[in-house]
Amino acid sequence: MKQVLDIMHWEGKQIEKLEKEFRRNLINSLSGHKSCNLVGTANTDGDNNLAIFNSVMHIGANPPLLGFVMRPTTVPRHTYNNIKATQYFTINSVQKEIMAKAHQTSANYPAFLSEYEEVGFTPQYSSLHTAPYVKESVIKIGLELTEELPVKSNGTIIIIGRVIEIIMPASIVSTDGFINLTKEHIVSGIGLDGYCEPKLLQRFQYARPSTEVTAK
Amino acid sequence: MKQVLDIMHWEGKQIEKLEKEFRRNLINSLSGHKSCNLVGTANTDGDNNLAIFNSVMHIGANPPLLGFVMRPTTVPRHTYNNIKATQYFTINSVQKEIMAKAHQTSANYPAFLSEYEEVGFTPQYSSLHTAPYVKESVIKIGLELTEELPVKSNGTIIIIGRVIEIIMPASIVSTDGFINLTKEHIVSGIGLDGYCEPKLLQRFQYARPSTEVTAK
Repeated sequence: MKQVLDIMHWEGKQIEKLEKEFRRNLINSLSGHKSCNLVGTANTDGDNNLAIFNSVMHIGANPPLLGFVMRPTTVPRHTYNNIKATQYFTINSVQKEIMAKAHQTSANYPAFLSEYEEVGFTPQYSSLHTAPYVKESVIKIGLELTEELPVKSNGTIIIIGRVIEIIMPASIVSTDGFINLTKEHIVSGIGLDGYCEPKLLQRFQYARPSTEVTAK
Repeated sequence: MKQVLDIMHWEGKQIEKLEKEFRRNLINSLSGHKSCNLVGTANTDGDNNLAIFNSVMHIGANPPLLGFVMRPTTVPRHTYNNIKATQYFTINSVQKEIMAKAHQTSANYPAFLSEYEEVGFTPQYSSLHTAPYVKESVIKIGLELTEELPVKSNGTIIIIGRVIEIIMPASIVSTDGFINLTKEHIVSGIGLDGYCEPKLLQRFQYARPSTEVTAK
């Protein structure tokens, strides 16, 4: 590692030789600010499961698709097994006031315990599917599994689902469909354990060549 | 769409019947706060290209992998073609002071124009690979393509790369590897055009069952 004028500079193999915990925190922080969501699932007996994920991402608007990254062989295995068994899952927002409880769902609870009960969240059910929502979350999204993409490079799996239900307060939805997440104090994440509250600075108009970008 | 007590509630086909622009803004905002990054590439002649992406995500720390979602058939095609041709790309952070210029890279510039020149960013080169960094970005990450995952559900592609170089100020890296992105005003995104500045609220200890979550 070269350090010149307070610049850190790692190359190739140096990155892989970093101390394990340091490297994990560093690489997890590199991508920038992350989404924070609770993923709710149930098994075929209706036993429910809840886990925090900071990898939920937009895949497409038409059809409406979201995805997230999971390690099927580590903690969130219950989530994976439940999605495979029932095809359904929910994505629920994390606001500032529930972020500590949301983080606690990352603890390694045995499969027979429900994180809803252990941590203190309320399951909320839909008439459309069997996966539980989090009543305390401001935004509740119901999804049906459409595909899973195995990542060969490290054995993780990207789960992709089609949005089949959306429940949220009208007060955060703009007339053009934009959702102002900051009005309800929805948090973002850094790395494995950092939680942030974003403040909306600006919306910009659709950008065009040779035209200066303008605020919306 | 049912609206009860100011709750918006869309089910199944109702979502697909939403007005196109409204649905695009809505679904793009659903996943929560997003990362904002500039992806730098060059073709085999060395002509460079720069485009903003809000889908860069952590895939794994060992090996160090990041990914992002792209539509190869729309605007960022130059990015895709360059990555396929050279195997290299860079991911560069977007701070508050450069966010308007970063947004402007999303304009549909023809392939023969460089967004670096058109928008006013400075390419910075590495001895390890051919993809240009953004000199104005605080965090600069060099990556080598490891795989691309076609998403059958909508024809997008998830590009995954191995981190081969990291350049950033020492002042934002904690002793345990955590990067405090907020110290350098790195922005997050909402939807297609919203830019936020996150404020770090809290880091939490590793969560364990039956132990109350505590601040770090």
